[in-house]
Amino acid sequence: MKRKYRAAIYGVSGYAGYELYRILKRHPEVEIEYVTADSSAGKRLSDIYPTSDETTILRNEQVDVEDVDAVFLSLPHGAAKSVVEKISAVSTTAKIIDLSADYRFDEAEEYEKWYGQKHTSPDFLDDFVYGLTELNREAIYKSRFVANPGCYPTATILGVFPLLKTKLIDLTSPVIIDAKSGVTGAGRKPEVRLLFAEVNENLSPYNIGYIHRHTGEIEQELNKVAGTNVSVIFSPHLVPITRGMLSTIYVKIPAVLSTEDLTEIFQKSYRDEPLVKVLRNNSIATFQHTINTNMCVMSVKKVENSPYAIVVSSIDNLGKGAAGQAVQNFNVMFGIEETEGLI
Amino acid sequence: MKRKYRAAIYGVSGYAGYELYRILKRHPEVEIEYVTADSSAGKRLSDIYPTSDETTILRNEQVDVEDVDAVFLSLPHGAAKSVVEKISAVSTTAKIIDLSADYRFDEAEEYEKWYGQKHTSPDFLDDFVYGLTELNREAIYKSRFVANPGCYPTATILGVFPLLKTKLIDLTSPVIIDAKSGVTGAGRKPEVRLLFAEVNENLSPYNIGYIHRHTGEIEQELNKVAGTNVSVIFSPHLVPITRGMLSTIYVKIPAVLSTEDLTEIFQKSYRDEPLVKVLRNNSIATFQHTINTNMCVMSVKKVENSPYAIVVSSIDNLGKGAAGQAVQNFNVMFGIEETEGLI
Amino acid sequence: MKRKYRAAIYGVSGYAGYELYRILKRHPEVEIEYVTADSSAGKRLSDIYPTSDETTILRNEQVDVEDVDAVFLSLPHGAAKSVVEKISAVSTTAKIIDLSADYRFDEAEEYEKWYGQKHTSPDFLDDFVYGLTELNREAIYKSRFVANPGCYPTATILGVFPLLKTKLIDLTSPVIIDAKSGVTGAGRKPEVRLLFAEVNENLSPYNIGYIHRHTGEIEQELNKVAGTNVSVIFSPHLVPITRGMLSTIYVKIPAVLSTEDLTEIFQKSYRDEPLVKVLRNNSIATFQHTINTNMCVMSVKKVENSPYAIVVSSIDNLGKGAAGQAVQNFNVMFGIEETEGLI
Amino acid sequence: MKRKYRAAIYGVSGYAGYELYRILKRHPEVEIEYVTADSSAGKRLSDIYPTSDETTILRNEQVDVEDVDAVFLSLPHGAAKSVVEKISAVSTTAKIIDLSADYRFDEAEEYEKWYGQKHTSPDFLDDFVYGLTELNREAIYKSRFVANPGCYPTATILGVFPLLKTKLIDLTSPVIIDAKSGVTGAGRKPEVRLLFAEVNENLSPYNIGYIHRHTGEIEQELNKVAGTNVSVIFSPHLVPITRGMLSTIYVKIPAVLSTEDLTEIFQKSYRDEPLVKVLRNNSIATFQHTINTNMCVMSVKKVENSPYAIVVSSIDNLGKGAAGQAVQNFNVMFGIEETEGLI
Repeated sequence: MKRKYRAAIYGVSGYAGYELYRILKRHPEVEIEYVTADSSAGKRLSDIYPTSDETTILRNEQVDVEDVDAVFLSLPHGAAKSVVEKISAVSTTAKIIDLSADYRFDEAEEYEKWYGQKHTSPDFLDDFVYGLTELNREAIYKSRFVANPGCYPTATILGVFPLLKTKLIDLTSPVIIDAKSGVTGAGRKPEVRLLFAEVNENLSPYNIGYIHRHTGEIEQELNKVAGTNVSVIFSPHLVPITRGMLSTIYVKIPAVLSTEDLTEIFQKSYRDEPLVKVLRNNSIATFQHTINTNMCVMSVKKVENSPYAIVVSSIDNLGKGAAGQAVQNFNVMFGIEETEGLI
Repeated sequence: MKRKYRAAIYGVSGYAGYELYRILKRHPEVEIEYVTADSSAGKRLSDIYPTSDETTILRNEQVDVEDVDAVFLSLPHGAAKSVVEKISAVSTTAKIIDLSADYRFDEAEEYEKWYGQKHTSPDFLDDFVYGLTELNREAIYKSRFVANPGCYPTATILGVFPLLKTKLIDLTSPVIIDAKSGVTGAGRKPEVRLLFAEVNENLSPYNIGYIHRHTGEIEQELNKVAGTNVSVIFSPHLVPITRGMLSTIYVKIPAVLSTEDLTEIFQKSYRDEPLVKVLRNNSIATFQHTINTNMCVMSVKKVENSPYAIVVSSIDNLGKGAAGQAVQNFNVMFGIEETEGLI
Repeated sequence: MKRKYRAAIYGVSGYAGYELYRILKRHPEVEIEYVTADSSAGKRLSDIYPTSDETTILRNEQVDVEDVDAVFLSLPHGAAKSVVEKISAVSTTAKIIDLSADYRFDEAEEYEKWYGQKHTSPDFLDDFVYGLTELNREAIYKSRFVANPGCYPTATILGVFPLLKTKLIDLTSPVIIDAKSGVTGAGRKPEVRLLFAEVNENLSPYNIGYIHRHTGEIEQELNKVAGTNVSVIFSPHLVPITRGMLSTIYVKIPAVLSTEDLTEIFQKSYRDEPLVKVLRNNSIATFQHTINTNMCVMSVKKVENSPYAIVVSSIDNLGKGAAGQAVQNFNVMFGIEETEGLI
Repeated sequence: MKRKYRAAIYGVSGYAGYELYRILKRHPEVEIEYVTADSSAGKRLSDIYPTSDETTILRNEQVDVEDVDAVFLSLPHGAAKSVVEKISAVSTTAKIIDLSADYRFDEAEEYEKWYGQKHTSPDFLDDFVYGLTELNREAIYKSRFVANPGCYPTATILGVFPLLKTKLIDLTSPVIIDAKSGVTGAGRKPEVRLLFAEVNENLSPYNIGYIHRHTGEIEQELNKVAGTNVSVIFSPHLVPITRGMLSTIYVKIPAVLSTEDLTEIFQKSYRDEPLVKVLRNNSIATFQHTINTNMCVMSVKKVENSPYAIVVSSIDNLGKGAAGQAVQNFNVMFGIEETEGLI
């Protein structure tokens, strides 16, 4: 019988870290060797997540990196950097999938601009592949280091890609992204603004315009697809839902294209993708299309009276938007069937 | 002591009709004489709304129209028309505030296009003033008939008005409206799509692009403000919240305008308005700014990297978006302090 | 390779029916041959449940009963009876798991008393085993017909069983059950009382005391365990949650028993049960312990100042409370590993 | 024109404190002179509650106690004690309504037992009247100090009172209270267990049996009504609702009493109470009966097969359960119409 791949999860106490644990535990080719969370070290998983088991949570430093094949980092932005540095110093084989933003940017300056802190290991940036699987599958397969994309960028870039790649977006107008996210996207932090009584019966735009950190990530990747600068307006909204995410995207296109044409372009673009689904003409993607899945589900529509298309792109922020895509990348990196453990 | 104005509410069993009842009951200058709902006739209000009282619900035809000063119609689109026709045949004095869409359009053709039915009393269209109080206060005061605006149009038109009136919107690009509505906006209909288990943990775009009926209403009014054709893209989303509504509006503007400039223009525009509030620079409007109020609260922001502004405009769909604005119009029509009963 | 068992699901459009579909689709030893729903016949599953697939929904009569090994009936109470009668007339081998209440009672009189309708096939009652797996495993294995328990009875009987069987409940006082249920427990019916705007921000006791239909079912089974009459007070409450269920149960016990004693009795009682979990002393069961699982999770506590114990028993109403238990029974009936497809 | 009463609100940043502000601001005979919150001093109210106004929040010590007629304390348990001590040292006239538990107990020992801390001013306990208005109206009117009841005790004691006073409860069995509370009852604390993603889609029993602090308060007051010891079992549950509370209460009664008899006893008991409503025979109280009101609404039902009654008693935990009752007591203390500002 084939030996299973041995994995470590750093940061298991957060929502994405625990989702990773849930997915990997069912994964037939994975053995979870270590789970860590400095803030909860010594506790059992079931102390934090009641439906879970009695696995003991370790401190980061208790992981024996030489003992594992794959490392999943679900740490806060800024904290992942130094862990990557330490692992690299010890192991030359462990593959790393980093769910933080620390290695998503091509240039340290961009990271520093959007995240407001010095990058301590800019040399590593070149080693990391941006892990949007559908766009970079080959590079991910060949790389030891993957920077797992942010949730908003995942939904958005996948929604813009088919028209951008085919040069059908008029880039003299900005790509306008009105995004809505469930609350787990903000993490498991004890802040007043995330309390039930604050979020419930409320819907809040935040960091709208050109402010949210994911804007830079979206722009960087869209620029690469377009081969030129793409102007992005990005407006996230917090909604009273535990998990899920949806980008409503407005792009200027040639007036002659119909909804049927557009849908065909999208379906063609994602024809062979197991984790992207393009809906039929008369359907619109919603949160429920992807909650508790690892899929990205999208729909596209021509606006009747204007040369514009509206793309709606839905993911589960903890699934395809975080842990699900991390496992998808893991599968690619290790040559496993891409959807193993994910459907 | 001054005699109170005598009022009738048609369609009290719906969410907007009952909100009207709640507001008018506290209104110091109003006596509610009749409440009707053909589908619930004979029941008591408390049978439908448990916190309410024992008032008996009548059939529409049981109202003695000659006995009342004001008639509020909270009936389904299409049904209001004939009631208006009947009332007009009986009474020459009762003032009518119609919350349906039946008399909102200037042209019967537009009504027929968006609502898919023949207009049976097109001659009355000229008699009705479009009841967006802040824009048409004088005409409302002088009129006997007011067509109360839809909820989406109220939030949206108020959000676009300050820049459109001052010619600061570049109309070569469309006005893009990404709107989010609480569930009471869809009415109290026993449909599967409105069940708790369908709406909860979901967020659904619907009728996006140029399809939703309120698009025509928004366009008609924006065209009048602009004195020219305004291209509108309107995308409503249903959110798992009982009441509340928010339009996130994207407009192209001169690049030189800053957030401070824009905020000043908005504050100046609504300086004397008791039921519109423009937030300070660093705040963004949310559902919670207006839930259970009759206010419209808005914020405006320049996008850093593009010549675009984002206006966020929030109302309670049952307050300023329906019953609250109906009472505001009632106050104007009868020369009462505009906010009476509303704050 | 072993042939898979061929299954038919009647009533796939309801919440429990669709949950059955989701579980069985992942079940390695099952092939779903037919799914029916007379009200949605001709539609695809994805028309009703957006994350689903393109399977066509049939009419009940389109099922070829001789072609299947197992029939799952997720039909309304009253409707299952005649389908069972028809299937029995055609096939002598197909095993039936009926999720309705039609064959749960030992006596037709009891059915008629609680469900207010004549039982048309009382002779079949003896053929059906009450499918609370943990209590009747042997009989289920030997039977061709299983009456799957109601959701409230499942959570409640499992919570009372360990103390009742060991004669530790003082039956001179009633067993008081204060139960809370998510909204899917009420089914997918277009009724005003189940609308989002009615259920949200509300919690409603209903049919409290000795009125709810599940009271008779609970009593019948507790009487059998006790070998004498058990007096039951049962108060269900509807809560604004999509799925989940919890019974808080108050029983009089010998004053000498401590929480530790009680917990030990429970743990011993369910030691070998793969789908029942008794929490440690200091934990209390919640909805989140079982949502999206097929487990029953419970905790027990001695009241400090009274000779009473409080048992809290949690299930997912669609999991262990309906579809999950149906598949558990299916596994037992066909000699498959009991948790196959369920964890 | 009559001078308004001058009021200070300590602890305005919490949910109950802000609710007090909202109620008092509409109160025609009150002028709010000071609002405090040490943790938010210097901020404006609208910084914390977006729909509010620009009133500046002070530190506790900035209140000039000699300048006010009434002091409302909405401070954490333990913190109110010393503020009362300080105010009493300065002012001999300001009336105090304390919403904390610090002066609710008759005996310091009981306070210390349930709240786990020394009582620093036990001599003041005699000066405070327990402010359950319906039971202690006369004493409240005559007193300068009122200890406003807890939310659970308010709903529960009012629900038990009519039968306890008339000696119709068989006290050889315990009074069993299964209570459900909205999340604002837990206060505005940044704790993980109160985050949206933890509370949403969950329902959690906590401190069940004889552990929750309100148990002692309930027992003390029921003992006084009964003139003997009443055994209480109290099980609170946290539900995913912002505000509201409901106690389902099980009491043993003479078997001869019918639901009609019981309802008549309740209606008679509360006949003259403006803020208590007893529902008709066929209705059951729900959260929606009292949300956003200052009422207590209840229903009572005989259990068919047992000598037990089930009382359901509903309040808004921030209304009658906190701020509403505080203002009701204020009205009584100052000889104002009892419901002023409350309906």
